[in-house]
Amino acid sequence: MARKIILDCDPGHDDAVALILAAGNPEIDLVGVTTVGGNQTLEKVTRNALAVLRVAGHPEIPVHAGCGRPLVREGAVAAHVHGESGLDGVELPEITGEVADGHAVDFIIDTVMSAEPKTITLVPVGPLTNIALAVRKEPRIVERVREVVLMGGGYRTGNCTAVAEFNVHTDPEAAHIVFNEDWPVTMVGLDLTHQALATADVEEELRALDSDAARFLLGLFGFFRRAYRDNQGFDDPPVHDPCAVAYLIDPGVMTTRTVPVDVELNGSLTAGMTVADFRAPVPESCSTRVAVELDHRRFWDLVIAAVAAVG
Amino acid sequence: MARKIILDCDPGHDDAVALILAAGNPEIDLVGVTTVGGNQTLEKVTRNALAVLRVAGHPEIPVHAGCGRPLVREGAVAAHVHGESGLDGVELPEITGEVADGHAVDFIIDTVMSAEPKTITLVPVGPLTNIALAVRKEPRIVERVREVVLMGGGYRTGNCTAVAEFNVHTDPEAAHIVFNEDWPVTMVGLDLTHQALATADVEEELRALDSDAARFLLGLFGFFRRAYRDNQGFDDPPVHDPCAVAYLIDPGVMTTRTVPVDVELNGSLTAGMTVADFRAPVPESCSTRVAVELDHRRFWDLVIAAVAAVG
Amino acid sequence: MARKIILDCDPGHDDAVALILAAGNPEIDLVGVTTVGGNQTLEKVTRNALAVLRVAGHPEIPVHAGCGRPLVREGAVAAHVHGESGLDGVELPEITGEVADGHAVDFIIDTVMSAEPKTITLVPVGPLTNIALAVRKEPRIVERVREVVLMGGGYRTGNCTAVAEFNVHTDPEAAHIVFNEDWPVTMVGLDLTHQALATADVEEELRALDSDAARFLLGLFGFFRRAYRDNQGFDDPPVHDPCAVAYLIDPGVMTTRTVPVDVELNGSLTAGMTVADFRAPVPESCSTRVAVELDHRRFWDLVIAAVAAVG
Amino acid sequence: MARKIILDCDPGHDDAVALILAAGNPEIDLVGVTTVGGNQTLEKVTRNALAVLRVAGHPEIPVHAGCGRPLVREGAVAAHVHGESGLDGVELPEITGEVADGHAVDFIIDTVMSAEPKTITLVPVGPLTNIALAVRKEPRIVERVREVVLMGGGYRTGNCTAVAEFNVHTDPEAAHIVFNEDWPVTMVGLDLTHQALATADVEEELRALDSDAARFLLGLFGFFRRAYRDNQGFDDPPVHDPCAVAYLIDPGVMTTRTVPVDVELNGSLTAGMTVADFRAPVPESCSTRVAVELDHRRFWDLVIAAVAAVG
Repeated sequence: MARKIILDCDPGHDDAVALILAAGNPEIDLVGVTTVGGNQTLEKVTRNALAVLRVAGHPEIPVHAGCGRPLVREGAVAAHVHGESGLDGVELPEITGEVADGHAVDFIIDTVMSAEPKTITLVPVGPLTNIALAVRKEPRIVERVREVVLMGGGYRTGNCTAVAEFNVHTDPEAAHIVFNEDWPVTMVGLDLTHQALATADVEEELRALDSDAARFLLGLFGFFRRAYRDNQGFDDPPVHDPCAVAYLIDPGVMTTRTVPVDVELNGSLTAGMTVADFRAPVPESCSTRVAVELDHRRFWDLVIAAVAAVG
Repeated sequence: MARKIILDCDPGHDDAVALILAAGNPEIDLVGVTTVGGNQTLEKVTRNALAVLRVAGHPEIPVHAGCGRPLVREGAVAAHVHGESGLDGVELPEITGEVADGHAVDFIIDTVMSAEPKTITLVPVGPLTNIALAVRKEPRIVERVREVVLMGGGYRTGNCTAVAEFNVHTDPEAAHIVFNEDWPVTMVGLDLTHQALATADVEEELRALDSDAARFLLGLFGFFRRAYRDNQGFDDPPVHDPCAVAYLIDPGVMTTRTVPVDVELNGSLTAGMTVADFRAPVPESCSTRVAVELDHRRFWDLVIAAVAAVG
Repeated sequence: MARKIILDCDPGHDDAVALILAAGNPEIDLVGVTTVGGNQTLEKVTRNALAVLRVAGHPEIPVHAGCGRPLVREGAVAAHVHGESGLDGVELPEITGEVADGHAVDFIIDTVMSAEPKTITLVPVGPLTNIALAVRKEPRIVERVREVVLMGGGYRTGNCTAVAEFNVHTDPEAAHIVFNEDWPVTMVGLDLTHQALATADVEEELRALDSDAARFLLGLFGFFRRAYRDNQGFDDPPVHDPCAVAYLIDPGVMTTRTVPVDVELNGSLTAGMTVADFRAPVPESCSTRVAVELDHRRFWDLVIAAVAAVG
Repeated sequence: MARKIILDCDPGHDDAVALILAAGNPEIDLVGVTTVGGNQTLEKVTRNALAVLRVAGHPEIPVHAGCGRPLVREGAVAAHVHGESGLDGVELPEITGEVADGHAVDFIIDTVMSAEPKTITLVPVGPLTNIALAVRKEPRIVERVREVVLMGGGYRTGNCTAVAEFNVHTDPEAAHIVFNEDWPVTMVGLDLTHQALATADVEEELRALDSDAARFLLGLFGFFRRAYRDNQGFDDPPVHDPCAVAYLIDPGVMTTRTVPVDVELNGSLTAGMTVADFRAPVPESCSTRVAVELDHRRFWDLVIAAVAAVG
């Protein structure tokens, strides 16, 4: 049976790939998409989510808009990485669908509370504001969610700062809430996603597909490549968000390690850092896990297959 | 026309007095009560709110339960001040009413968004978790609310710590959110409420009323007197929460001063402190105000009249 | 017998008055002056100390230069308050004396360790860097010092920030060290010194003295008056530092209160705040005290008398 | 010409090895040893330093006692790692020498200021309190010291906490001072020293030497092995401190990388963390460097040779 997920995202180039992977892979049942301000404003990322679902051939999947800014800190968009539209580098299709009624937070709560226990997986790939608000508004979702598999953080790598990643750094209080609830959390952080590089070989395979969706991704990768080269000195751009989806399709796509993870809220140099404790032994009650090593080939095979499937 | 307010509370002895004052005074239109974990657990304070409204002769006013714990920090109840029930010292009436459908956060949002702009006043007298969640879930309430008049904080006095008051100390992140939004906030803090002492004279006046509601208050004051004497060395107990309601009935009951107020989130000694800046000059854009001096007689006259009114 | 003190200062207009009071009052035996970077650079304040001692008729009192910057934080001078020279507003006499050999920290240690126990009082009226270094280098001074009477901090008032005073805010780690050692500390903070205003009456009395020292003070007060009016909206300038010296001449010049005091190092809004805990009861072991109310007349009588004495 | 170093230490098992390496290798001119409270109290580590120098055949090298506690934080010894004596596992020789006159801080300052510029290297392998005090007392040492090569910190590994190492965690303010001065700092942290394991092979080689010094080290390693196994789950104990000395004898014993390093002072989870920024590009002005990979064979060859040399 396909895995039921809610993808909470802020598209965003790599979010777009995550959406296409989730929509195009038969192992995933994408019951809904929720949006959160992050890579760009809530308005833009919500429009982008609608557009990408149309590219992915699934305009019927509901998109619920959520929070436009972090819980406590001032928000900031990542226009230097994703451009003014949040998806610079491609022409977006006209949007025919509409944003679904109901706040993202309520959609998450209602979906989780009305489904069979332990059947819904939350896949946040933006700042964790919506998830944090949902769990504070309805704490019972914690025991009903199957698991949380998130893109964010990094146990040894940062991008916003030396040690903090954008999604967690943008709303550290929300991340603190999510990591400290008693549900299984798998952190697919920069340590892993910096291995998910869109290399020339990957682009070649996409080009061979000769489809609209493939050309869409090539457009995204082209812009992303330049942004990552100019901002962070990468040769090939890391495509973060689909890693979290890929893990749910095929856990063998990466190795993980169970270690305590918490979020630093107060540091002058370390605010927004995901602090993983690799000192032995791991406490019995530890419910957090970090992604360590990616099978690059296996990961991109999943992405390419999904792109081929959505046509 | 009576002032429409939502009282967000965690009864609590002084919350009970605030409820009776709001229900019994004709200048106040108590459109709803919302509850929040604080002085005691959410379950207990919600039950207490229902019971007190019954004492106040207004069981029809809806009570919506809200958040059971603070946004980020671990919660803690104040059983040493309010007892195991949250209202120790009185026998609570049997509850015939029921908790209203709908989360407190949604009740606040829906009430504010469906009322005429600038007609609803929020009166939080517990931790600010519900208000913070509401404003993050629906940011448009900020410009539609008339004002926020809260009991909490203290610009020169603390109780939980040397410089932090219980409501703000319990959920400083929520308080930070509320104080930093662009709506008028009046902070009725410990500096003011420590003047609202339930003296022997006040008790005498209540006794003279010889009514159920008066006896209810006398029971509350008896327990509260002992708790404040034992915990904080007060001769007479300060009755915090009704001060915020009294201010809305008659602003002349206290003096206030417009000064910037913010909430410290990071200090080792000062976390949860409301930091007011009394250095001249006050910025033009300042939307925060602190209560300074109480007219003790005028305040208690309002309370006594309300108790008399509810019978 | 005159009280033996070491005055640790960063002249500075009010430091100059403290030097003249200490040098001119027979109850004080000023065994040495140590300097610390603060109001101006170490070089300037050291030169100023030498010059003021010459004005005070005591060029033989040794001046030892100390630390030029705070322990941990970046330093900053207060040129907007004290001018480019640190003593703007007067012409400084030519300096004939020289800076004494030996670092201020060693002078403090050697003086305390070689004197009879409990005979030397430390009077720091600048950032507490020298005192902190001395106590870490030679911890035994703690039990040998008679007491520490410092100008700095404020339990309800700030100037650098809403809640932090310049001396403590400049080197909060040093202040933390001083307040947490087990010696008697009297904090003469802004709460007290904002009462020590150099009013027109005070200036009139100085003018009547018609002496070089009096004219020197009038020059200082003139500049200080403008700086305080322009920067902080004061009508008359507060003359902070001599208050600490005055207290040692005549404790009756002010009231004090024994309360625990500590220094906040981490707050976003409160770093450098002296946190006093006024909640009852005061712990038996409490060794800190704050100055509360000044006898304005008695204070200025001491200052005027000293100015008259030094001629 | 031999490299002139001051070894600032808190022996401590691995400190003892560092002392023997420094005393026994002809490339090092150990001009003095300074001690600091850390692994054990100042009194114990000073006695241990004297005893180890006797084992090393160099009782004439002066030992100056320094600070007994950290600058700001409460101190704590590491008796669970080093035992009650600080050197549990061996019988210490009777001490014939005496602690040298003069505080460690003054010895450091005087040695650096009186030597040719850029000839003295500071090698702190305990908490950085002495070095920090020296640089604040006499800032000119910064430009006169050749370099600082310290054992402490870790860019991806902690022991006291998930991310903080003992020496830096014990006195983070002192470490902050040392890392932020404008002198070359090489951090030989846990990332490197956890590779310097005293394996069975190493012990075998020591045993083959059949000397007093070798037996002394074997005794130390035996205790250290048990402590690291019981406390941190290591099979073989890491011998931290001599790595810093080895680097000065033969830089080829390890690889290093130039990256900005700073010390977190405020974090709830990260206080005392050495935050290294591996994001490209490294600023031109970067004066900090971290040790990355150890040549295990080459390192132990140096140690064994020194043990053989001291007999």
